[in-house]
Amino acid sequence: MSNKLVKNAAGRMVPTEINGRPVVPYRGVGKYHPTGNKHAPNIASNIDYPADGNKLLPSLKEALVKCGLKDGMTLSTHHHFREGDLLATMIFDCASELGVKRLRWFPSASFSCHAYLLKYLDDGTINYIEGSMNGPLGKYCSEGKMKKTAVLRSHGGRYQAVQDGEVKIDIAVIGAGSADAFGNANGVNGPSASGVLGFALADAQYADKVIVVTDNLVPFPCIPWQIQGNYVDCTVKVDKVGIPEKIVSGTTKVTRSPERLLIAEMTARFCDVTGIIHEGFSFQAGAGGTALSVGNYFGDIMREKGIKARFARGGSNKYLVSMLEEGLVDYILDGQTFDLDGVRSIHDNPNHVMTSPFSSYNYHSKGNFAGMVDVVILGATEVDLDFNANVVTHSDGYLLHGLGGWQNCLFGKNVILPIPLFRDRIPVIRDEVTTLCGPGELIDVIITERGIAINPLRTDLIEKVQHSDLPIKTIGQLKDEAEKICGKPNKPEFTDKIVAAIKWVDGTIIDVVKQVVVDP
Amino acid sequence: MSNKLVKNAAGRMVPTEINGRPVVPYRGVGKYHPTGNKHAPNIASNIDYPADGNKLLPSLKEALVKCGLKDGMTLSTHHHFREGDLLATMIFDCASELGVKRLRWFPSASFSCHAYLLKYLDDGTINYIEGSMNGPLGKYCSEGKMKKTAVLRSHGGRYQAVQDGEVKIDIAVIGAGSADAFGNANGVNGPSASGVLGFALADAQYADKVIVVTDNLVPFPCIPWQIQGNYVDCTVKVDKVGIPEKIVSGTTKVTRSPERLLIAEMTARFCDVTGIIHEGFSFQAGAGGTALSVGNYFGDIMREKGIKARFARGGSNKYLVSMLEEGLVDYILDGQTFDLDGVRSIHDNPNHVMTSPFSSYNYHSKGNFAGMVDVVILGATEVDLDFNANVVTHSDGYLLHGLGGWQNCLFGKNVILPIPLFRDRIPVIRDEVTTLCGPGELIDVIITERGIAINPLRTDLIEKVQHSDLPIKTIGQLKDEAEKICGKPNKPEFTDKIVAAIKWVDGTIIDVVKQVVVDP
Repeated sequence: MSNKLVKNAAGRMVPTEINGRPVVPYRGVGKYHPTGNKHAPNIASNIDYPADGNKLLPSLKEALVKCGLKDGMTLSTHHHFREGDLLATMIFDCASELGVKRLRWFPSASFSCHAYLLKYLDDGTINYIEGSMNGPLGKYCSEGKMKKTAVLRSHGGRYQAVQDGEVKIDIAVIGAGSADAFGNANGVNGPSASGVLGFALADAQYADKVIVVTDNLVPFPCIPWQIQGNYVDCTVKVDKVGIPEKIVSGTTKVTRSPERLLIAEMTARFCDVTGIIHEGFSFQAGAGGTALSVGNYFGDIMREKGIKARFARGGSNKYLVSMLEEGLVDYILDGQTFDLDGVRSIHDNPNHVMTSPFSSYNYHSKGNFAGMVDVVILGATEVDLDFNANVVTHSDGYLLHGLGGWQNCLFGKNVILPIPLFRDRIPVIRDEVTTLCGPGELIDVIITERGIAINPLRTDLIEKVQHSDLPIKTIGQLKDEAEKICGKPNKPEFTDKIVAAIKWVDGTIIDVVKQVVVDP
Repeated sequence: MSNKLVKNAAGRMVPTEINGRPVVPYRGVGKYHPTGNKHAPNIASNIDYPADGNKLLPSLKEALVKCGLKDGMTLSTHHHFREGDLLATMIFDCASELGVKRLRWFPSASFSCHAYLLKYLDDGTINYIEGSMNGPLGKYCSEGKMKKTAVLRSHGGRYQAVQDGEVKIDIAVIGAGSADAFGNANGVNGPSASGVLGFALADAQYADKVIVVTDNLVPFPCIPWQIQGNYVDCTVKVDKVGIPEKIVSGTTKVTRSPERLLIAEMTARFCDVTGIIHEGFSFQAGAGGTALSVGNYFGDIMREKGIKARFARGGSNKYLVSMLEEGLVDYILDGQTFDLDGVRSIHDNPNHVMTSPFSSYNYHSKGNFAGMVDVVILGATEVDLDFNANVVTHSDGYLLHGLGGWQNCLFGKNVILPIPLFRDRIPVIRDEVTTLCGPGELIDVIITERGIAINPLRTDLIEKVQHSDLPIKTIGQLKDEAEKICGKPNKPEFTDKIVAAIKWVDGTIIDVVKQVVVDP
């Protein structure tokens, strides 16, 4: 990227153009007001679709051909199966066989299982990835090997980008546990049920062509229809659409570390002392071992006090499901099932409700659910003295995680990051975060094994803990303690090449990731 | 209307411009291919909505003011309460108090209860109605009293028109049995539950401003959310939003007439003989006493044969609900609850599934459900020798009914009109229908108390009944029989003034209604 860099409202140097398209530098929370209109898809007509509703084609390859797959197109997929995704591989194998090149892959997230696709990034079948990258793809990107700049968006930001026409999807391929030949589809039934299909909603609504792929074709009507067949161009049956057992991955297992359990317990106690846990409250504990444990401690407090929560936001998992079943929460509002207990519950329990990035997270709508959550428990790879946080790069500079719904959740009423003071002897609290993903003004509390730091902006919380026995410190104190033990961490070394851009929830550029200098 | 008339593909003289906007004359079934893009609403931003999601305003009037109500705007409402609607009255009372004029009312349907609004049509608060008109409003229109030309659309056509930007709604007001302050709303809960809210879907998605009105405000989240609060600008609580007891109206009571029961029974027998009733079949029996009875006879046949239907399309009613509960149908796919049994069932039974005009009827989408239904039972005020049918005007020329989902349902695999040979001694089969609403090529069978006429295009059906004892006749024979008894009916007298246009499902003009000559 050779275009000029400008300093954005967070003080980060960002480009004004990415991959040949102009972009808006971050202007501050709630400062950028969008103009213009939503993306307007072509008007379709029933004339062009089978009168009997049967849109079934013999293979994914034929479906891609029918949808006009050609060089340079944007193809989207979704991560409902997480590490158990099989579809991206199938799609790009087809594209490769067809000799199609320069595709932009626009996944809702990518995982280690997608390391297979590196060969297609190498040979030019895939031009570049526009979406969150976990593990090997992130490493590939960080090392400057991708042909264009990656663009990372939150789940809500991805919906926003599609809705606003920032990203025009040519062909969306949606993998579903069940579907009918018309294209109505869900993730709750069938041998490859993965739960909610919300990440594919924007694609169904706005993509030019939509393909639904399932291994469980049911007679019309496929109920429930999380994806409506009225948006679907063709349907395909395959032997296996995904591996639901692999939905449970690294970030979705509860921690067993005594230190992290201590942090989780302290987090719950903080929420109790400050009155955040009250009759009818709501919470979201994201993926990540510590966050999941916090939910368990919430349950203990609720039981003890005889109160219940109005709702809990998913990602759902067995812990949350058991709270729903116990009657500790009225509803789970679920964007993503993180294990098979979640899948089962969403199938069986009408109070386990499917949501989508549109309803939960889209910043360019008339409000969303994120702001209504009393407390959200999130992770971070780094935090700085101004409470700014990073979730995508490690302190070695490598891009190894996606944004997920993290940025969107920052709009919750109380945002708490329970994090260890150091990881692998590298302090987590830094002078400056390697990559800025979330502005400090939205992050209220940092809870570590050695103390709790409250954002000075939250004088109300500071007051509430004044007479408690909680170990309240300043974030500077916590940083000093960590550095006393581990020493001052080195800054990672980067080249000048921008390999990825981090979007804020409103589509502006909050930061960039640069190519790492690889040790010789 | 002074613009020139042209002959459309059905041979009807229609204008090329209505209310100052160009329109496309009907070109034949499946002949008009839309171009262009869907309506693209302004991009909204969370910035402009309350951070805590609470959009509640003290009164409907304040909500209308906040939404910028002004002269000449288009306001939409929905007929989920049918004769029990209270909202249209409230809205136009507010508008009148605010002195706003020249409003276009865009209801999904209007009923006799809306006769109250005639005074606002008289005094210019309402400029004209764009939507189906039952009873007194239709009479007012037919007598040439409305300031502009009415435009009648099917339920699917209304969705299409909004989606395609033909009708831009400034403010949609959605009455809901339950809602939360964020605007999530449903019709299944609360003292004024009316069932499905599907008619309001297009409005929520595409209107500039959306107001949700309820008398049963629940804490977030209002589950299920048939209307998503993310589309909603403000919410209002009123004492009573509608009268659910009045949902059951004239067209939704099963017939007690022995003659009509005979027709219904014959219809069912026809479907049995022709194999239309088979394991896993699907049916839709619209509103109307005879149609409702047909469903009952279907049940008898299914019980006798030990088979079941895969799905039945609603409007749901107690007969259909009892079939679902008995296990005779797997699913009701419901667009509109026609009685309180329907409301209860959709609340309780997960196999009673909500649909919308988008999923069921929108012709400008990638297919819809209408074409997948094996048999649809519809009514008609008149049919001609080419099987063309009329549902909006009576033989006296008065516009007295809406199109409902009638046109959309014509795409079912077998379309049967069980109709009496004459009403009030006026034959129903005519040389030419007063108003053309549905092209004969889509209407397969006419079943009267004196015989059955099969459309000659359906050679397959003709063959199947060849050796049956069903009283098969030509439509000409049926017409002659009626005229022998009642005499040849007079044609109604009209002036040249076009008072209403009838849209086909693709937005083209299939016919017009002219002003009646009122007896002195």
